[in-house]
Amino acid sequence: MTTSHSTNEAPYELIYWHVIPGRGEHIRLCFVEAGVPYSDTAFTEGGMDVLHAYISDTNTGDELNPPPFAPPILKHGDLVISQTPNILQYLGPKLGLAANGGDDIFRINALALTALDGLSNEVHNCHHPIAIDLYYEDQKEECLRRVKDWVKNRLPKYLGYFERVLSGKASKDGPWLYGGVLTWADLVLFQTLDGTSYFFRKAVAAAKNSGKYGRVFQHYEAVKARPRIAEYLASDRRQKYSNYGVYRYYEELDLVAEE
Amino acid sequence: MTTSHSTNEAPYELIYWHVIPGRGEHIRLCFVEAGVPYSDTAFTEGGMDVLHAYISDTNTGDELNPPPFAPPILKHGDLVISQTPNILQYLGPKLGLAANGGDDIFRINALALTALDGLSNEVHNCHHPIAIDLYYEDQKEECLRRVKDWVKNRLPKYLGYFERVLSGKASKDGPWLYGGVLTWADLVLFQTLDGTSYFFRKAVAAAKNSGKYGRVFQHYEAVKARPRIAEYLASDRRQKYSNYGVYRYYEELDLVAEE
Repeated sequence: MTTSHSTNEAPYELIYWHVIPGRGEHIRLCFVEAGVPYSDTAFTEGGMDVLHAYISDTNTGDELNPPPFAPPILKHGDLVISQTPNILQYLGPKLGLAANGGDDIFRINALALTALDGLSNEVHNCHHPIAIDLYYEDQKEECLRRVKDWVKNRLPKYLGYFERVLSGKASKDGPWLYGGVLTWADLVLFQTLDGTSYFFRKAVAAAKNSGKYGRVFQHYEAVKARPRIAEYLASDRRQKYSNYGVYRYYEELDLVAEE
Repeated sequence: MTTSHSTNEAPYELIYWHVIPGRGEHIRLCFVEAGVPYSDTAFTEGGMDVLHAYISDTNTGDELNPPPFAPPILKHGDLVISQTPNILQYLGPKLGLAANGGDDIFRINALALTALDGLSNEVHNCHHPIAIDLYYEDQKEECLRRVKDWVKNRLPKYLGYFERVLSGKASKDGPWLYGGVLTWADLVLFQTLDGTSYFFRKAVAAAKNSGKYGRVFQHYEAVKARPRIAEYLASDRRQKYSNYGVYRYYEELDLVAEE
């Protein structure tokens, strides 16, 4: 039986789609902030063949690793894992993005999961409420109905939640979400709000102008101004949002909340 | 500044809604299988007041813990954490449900997250595709459209995935998903398939009869036959599914896949 080798010396390999930032972007931002090198199938010749082999219906994994359901996938030595929040939680302590470590990783993970639920998964379902297998154009009416509710009820709920987190004692007076230091949850909140702002430009602008979520928007700017993040965002490595990914732009869905 | 005390001696306190099994049930099943006692607001006088205080719009958490967004919530000594997969990952190693521990917790967590995505969150969205704030009755047409696609495309995709996991080398010839031992991912797959079978009785029966997912249905029976699980399922502590929860029954949505 094979046993797991130390993975500490192994290279980090990200397996993710090309063309879109998507969920893989959360993992990229962790490496960028930490200044740690990684490979990325989005920019590697033959990268999509590697990806498709991992998620093939015939892949049953190996001795140590079950097959992944979907990308993003991280390979680190013998370890092959999938699921965005899971990969982030694995990397957080290794990249120095986990506050004091120990039980803090569960406090941070809860924040990251909540941002992903609200400002990524729920946003994705705003352009695919009926079926992920159908085109947006085949569910446009349902999208419009969903978006009207989402910008009115759900967007303020999540922004209000993170405003409360940032005002709480465990954040240690900000600007970061937890423990007075930047963690992977900060990078997740930044990226999910960035994508949500691309999709719902009018609703997010209205939320910003309302003054109700001052800490959340300061937090966004604080992450964006981190030197390595700022350099990355200005580079070619930062892929553009497009209508293949989680965060899209459809003018007819760019609505503000109705009274 | 307060520092985190050892929580190993502290009681486990589950904070969750009463009346429905819901997402809290995944956490209960871990305690049950491990034979470890815990308290549960679903069965405690004043339990819902405790729950509402945690998720109140005015709760900003404490020195160590950000406020939770939603239940389930676990309190263990100084630690207060939320998000189902996060709580499960915290408990798994402590309750002896994490195979060899170490990096295995990330392999197991990926399986648990996938079962929760597919057979819990996607199923929930079958009765709330448009808005969680609206009643089912106000989005019935959209539900019907979503369900027709879901039973045709998504149910077989997830069942096929777990069949592959169970046939892979990392499962060590079954009946368990990973490493030849029962882990928290097994309990999650059991509970999500149990709930999905309640919602989509015809589609799951058809999948079972197809013979394509033999390992998945054997896995389900193997979990159900664990002595402590079997005793729990037969007891009053196992709450019934109802139309307030993730897993519901609407006759008009109980469809099989159309060719």
